[in-house]
Amino acid sequence: MSMVCLSDFEAYAKKYLPKIAWDYFAAGADDCTTRDENILAYKRIRFRPRMLRDVSVMDIRTKILGSEISFPVGIAPTGFHQLAWPDGEKSTARAARAMDTCYIASTYSTCSLEEISAAAPGGLRWFQLYIHRNRAASQQLVRRAEALGFQALVLTADLPYTGKRRDDVRNGFRLPPHMKVKNLEGAFEVCKMSLLDPSVTWNDIYWLRSLTRLPIIIKGILTREDAELAVKHGVQGIIVSNHGGRQLDEGPATIDALVEVAEAVRGRVEVYVDGGIRKGSDVLKALALGAKCVFIGRPALWGLAYKGEEGLQDVLRILQDEFCLSMALAG
Amino acid sequence: MSMVCLSDFEAYAKKYLPKIAWDYFAAGADDCTTRDENILAYKRIRFRPRMLRDVSVMDIRTKILGSEISFPVGIAPTGFHQLAWPDGEKSTARAARAMDTCYIASTYSTCSLEEISAAAPGGLRWFQLYIHRNRAASQQLVRRAEALGFQALVLTADLPYTGKRRDDVRNGFRLPPHMKVKNLEGAFEVCKMSLLDPSVTWNDIYWLRSLTRLPIIIKGILTREDAELAVKHGVQGIIVSNHGGRQLDEGPATIDALVEVAEAVRGRVEVYVDGGIRKGSDVLKALALGAKCVFIGRPALWGLAYKGEEGLQDVLRILQDEFCLSMALAG
Amino acid sequence: MSMVCLSDFEAYAKKYLPKIAWDYFAAGADDCTTRDENILAYKRIRFRPRMLRDVSVMDIRTKILGSEISFPVGIAPTGFHQLAWPDGEKSTARAARAMDTCYIASTYSTCSLEEISAAAPGGLRWFQLYIHRNRAASQQLVRRAEALGFQALVLTADLPYTGKRRDDVRNGFRLPPHMKVKNLEGAFEVCKMSLLDPSVTWNDIYWLRSLTRLPIIIKGILTREDAELAVKHGVQGIIVSNHGGRQLDEGPATIDALVEVAEAVRGRVEVYVDGGIRKGSDVLKALALGAKCVFIGRPALWGLAYKGEEGLQDVLRILQDEFCLSMALAG
Amino acid sequence: MSMVCLSDFEAYAKKYLPKIAWDYFAAGADDCTTRDENILAYKRIRFRPRMLRDVSVMDIRTKILGSEISFPVGIAPTGFHQLAWPDGEKSTARAARAMDTCYIASTYSTCSLEEISAAAPGGLRWFQLYIHRNRAASQQLVRRAEALGFQALVLTADLPYTGKRRDDVRNGFRLPPHMKVKNLEGAFEVCKMSLLDPSVTWNDIYWLRSLTRLPIIIKGILTREDAELAVKHGVQGIIVSNHGGRQLDEGPATIDALVEVAEAVRGRVEVYVDGGIRKGSDVLKALALGAKCVFIGRPALWGLAYKGEEGLQDVLRILQDEFCLSMALAG
Repeated sequence: MSMVCLSDFEAYAKKYLPKIAWDYFAAGADDCTTRDENILAYKRIRFRPRMLRDVSVMDIRTKILGSEISFPVGIAPTGFHQLAWPDGEKSTARAARAMDTCYIASTYSTCSLEEISAAAPGGLRWFQLYIHRNRAASQQLVRRAEALGFQALVLTADLPYTGKRRDDVRNGFRLPPHMKVKNLEGAFEVCKMSLLDPSVTWNDIYWLRSLTRLPIIIKGILTREDAELAVKHGVQGIIVSNHGGRQLDEGPATIDALVEVAEAVRGRVEVYVDGGIRKGSDVLKALALGAKCVFIGRPALWGLAYKGEEGLQDVLRILQDEFCLSMALAG
Repeated sequence: MSMVCLSDFEAYAKKYLPKIAWDYFAAGADDCTTRDENILAYKRIRFRPRMLRDVSVMDIRTKILGSEISFPVGIAPTGFHQLAWPDGEKSTARAARAMDTCYIASTYSTCSLEEISAAAPGGLRWFQLYIHRNRAASQQLVRRAEALGFQALVLTADLPYTGKRRDDVRNGFRLPPHMKVKNLEGAFEVCKMSLLDPSVTWNDIYWLRSLTRLPIIIKGILTREDAELAVKHGVQGIIVSNHGGRQLDEGPATIDALVEVAEAVRGRVEVYVDGGIRKGSDVLKALALGAKCVFIGRPALWGLAYKGEEGLQDVLRILQDEFCLSMALAG
Repeated sequence: MSMVCLSDFEAYAKKYLPKIAWDYFAAGADDCTTRDENILAYKRIRFRPRMLRDVSVMDIRTKILGSEISFPVGIAPTGFHQLAWPDGEKSTARAARAMDTCYIASTYSTCSLEEISAAAPGGLRWFQLYIHRNRAASQQLVRRAEALGFQALVLTADLPYTGKRRDDVRNGFRLPPHMKVKNLEGAFEVCKMSLLDPSVTWNDIYWLRSLTRLPIIIKGILTREDAELAVKHGVQGIIVSNHGGRQLDEGPATIDALVEVAEAVRGRVEVYVDGGIRKGSDVLKALALGAKCVFIGRPALWGLAYKGEEGLQDVLRILQDEFCLSMALAG
Repeated sequence: MSMVCLSDFEAYAKKYLPKIAWDYFAAGADDCTTRDENILAYKRIRFRPRMLRDVSVMDIRTKILGSEISFPVGIAPTGFHQLAWPDGEKSTARAARAMDTCYIASTYSTCSLEEISAAAPGGLRWFQLYIHRNRAASQQLVRRAEALGFQALVLTADLPYTGKRRDDVRNGFRLPPHMKVKNLEGAFEVCKMSLLDPSVTWNDIYWLRSLTRLPIIIKGILTREDAELAVKHGVQGIIVSNHGGRQLDEGPATIDALVEVAEAVRGRVEVYVDGGIRKGSDVLKALALGAKCVFIGRPALWGLAYKGEEGLQDVLRILQDEFCLSMALAG
């Protein structure tokens, strides 16, 4: 099987992953309208290609929050990487470091922050977190991430409750017994209610700020109003995201929301986007519309499912090549 | 079979109901364009989700014409419930009471008003009626409904003649011999011509008003002009409805008509909507666009077909959960 | 097989007609885009239904060029009716008379004008003609039609050459040997070149006018500019038509062109439309957009293919019933 | 098999060409969106047909850069014609001469310029070239073309690098060993890196101008900005082209870009277009929107694949007939 584009990895993952894992990664909320819109919205955007420009040398390195990465594509936070590959997030961390880009580790990793750090020392990593009902637990996670050299905190804002993903409900999805959400082990008593606090508001940004010297990035912003609030509350970055279409269905595609957010932010903080990136030209569109960098979610998981660390590198390398080619051809 | 969303109930009903019953419930007029548009129009409406609002406590109770219901979803008037479940409208009444919401009983019920009342004493119920050529018959129905504690009259305005539902014509649809339109038994001589009076006009609202102290709600309004006339003729409420796409094909979707009607009414009377509600987020959209409450037609029948009273409660509970989740995720 | 709507007749004709005949009737030019657009354009037009109007009595009789017909649907000129039914245009004439409407007989009939007249004496009929290279032949046809009591001439303007209908080319379509274009027998020497004159211009209307006292209707107008020219050249009526999508592909749908033509004409002459009528509600839309009457082409042929005269009456009766019902439901 | 329209040739080629050759000719970049848009965009353009104009005589001859051709359709430059037919570009040259039109020979021909010239002496031919890293090689090609009587140079501007055509990558596409890119034999050392120079800019037009007295046409322009630059840099013609959708995916369809380019150019130089021409009416649309002539790429290859020189003449003849008919029917 020759892997030519990201869809090839998707087809592979669909074929070889256990159905329950594939369904979990593929899931969108309700009718999956927003999940699919994320992709369709990119297709609706047209280039105006310019000719006869010297494209013999192209510099695609960029900086996010001051750290240089090899090209403007990072790894979005997604959970449960061991469902895709035995080494789980350790492989992800190694692939990201090998490709010299940023990996946002999820709270819901099946490896602990410590294992992730140890697997790829020196890699650029951010830590994604939620605010828990048990604030002490959140505080402890922040401290651990900071101590381990994670260079930013990514606060997910769009999950006061988990979206309704029908296939997961049908499958009765839960982690297999030999996998654990290691970051939360010991930090919580086993409890029936959700660990996440649905009463979180913008003021909790101040509380989070008080815990750490790390920059805070907010993930899940889709409107100009919330972008304005984010800037006002002092975040250092915004990830325009709809959680891969897994939370509220029938909201905007992220690339459409990016336009409105970037316009509202006017460069005061860095703006990133995730959701729907499937080709190098999608990256170029996102950058042209105001993103400093994009993050990939499902494609990274497909890469892991294909060949672990090596497969994820393949995915990133294909995106990189396509991104370069698109830049050259668009002038 | 696990019932996760309303489509699951639809699939069940399609599989297990007799074809003639399924066809009757599913039927739309002519090409079924409007029936399908009712659903598609919801999909075209996009949320602008807001983040970091305290959504730990949500109050979804509401009042319609002064009566409190547990959440803003009632049961629209549809005929012939015994085609879906042996106990027919008695089960519907019980489910509505159990879920603490409003049930609009149809004139074309296969249980009498008396049976419906007796099945679920104390439930909030409205009575749907037509104006018959034989006005005395209409008058008698109004008196019975009022005496039995129905709390409003819902006058259907969009059926001077029955729409052309091709499958019903092909099937030669009629009630099986052991079912009866009990509300009309004895009130009419058997006759060949339609019982309904196509010469009814707005002035007949005054006549209806003269018969009863109950509030009058008009069902079937789709334009601002008619909304204005409805208010002028003193109704207490308007149900924006196209009869589930079973009357005139290629009119507007109800959610689109709702916007124009709500704008014309400017809060002078309560406005409701039916048609096309398939998810909790549809309810949220309808409320955001001016409805005080929505009513479900076919989904209620699918619930009955699944497990009678219990199945209909399942449908309502799913809608309720989805509605809450949508509210939380939309901020 | 129960015939409930016009599509049922279409399905029947497709199943039972010889392929070469079905293909000929169904053919559109090139990619058949305009043929299909004729239908799709009706679907894009939405009603604004009004309620509670007295629709107990409806008068659907109308007058075209002063002659009363039972409802505003006539038979458009189409050729070769013997391909659909042995009695050919004689059956068409009888059905039109039985239903008390207008039949536009085609030059390319497989019965002669004399046979058509004799088959249904007293029926309202117009005669469709082209202008031939041999003007004497055209003149002779006009004289015959006038003498036989045809009440108007319908000049087809959109066929300087025959459109490219791929299936007809593939099939090598021509009339079976036992059928003849009887109106042209004897009038022309057998010749290889087309009989029609592609050099015809607006001035030829004056020539045609000089031959006859009959009203002249021009068929094939699609733009306001040509509508203006038609009025200026003294025609009594305009049929907005694209020849069923059989001539130039990718021009406008007739119902869309009707709006622009009716606006330009401002009532100075009568405007009719053909193409894409499949339901009674299509008739209502055409009338609401400025047509005095519509004409059906393929549906008439399907009716003939089903049961000759009787089948065509069925088609007309269904359209009539649907038209009445639509009027009532739209208020 | 009867060849009625260009799609028939496409179906034939798909059936009988080796898969690797078919895939190469059919390939579009990435998701093939632009390749398909080229065709879809034509379908979105509607005629406004005018009636009763004298269309008995039509003159479809035209002049491009002063040379008369029999109708405004030429052969676009495409590579590797021996993949379609053993005689390759020699057949193409003969067919173009037989039909009295212009053939733009590609640098990537499998016959040499000398062979092409010898095959059809006296035919109107232009030569398509790239600017190579080895400028001397480019210079030599220009000299050869000029010496052989090619009447213009067509500089392709949209290929600093080759687009990503997934099927070609999957197939590991390369020429079979018995075919050669004869124009480049001997001129270059075998080398691994691309022969084309991605650092070419508008200034290189001046360099090219200094080498030759032939008119220079630039191919690959899609925006008004680049059209303006092309005029400013003294080209004699512009071919609006996206390389058949084989370079940057998700740019504009050529017929859409033509409108903007023609508007910017305002007749200062001749404007042509290629991509998506499948019917005679497409030619008419392109001319109506500002093109002086169109060029066909894939359809010419399908014609070759069908019957070599004769098949390509069939393709051109069908287009010519359809073009005439469209003109007549559109008035």
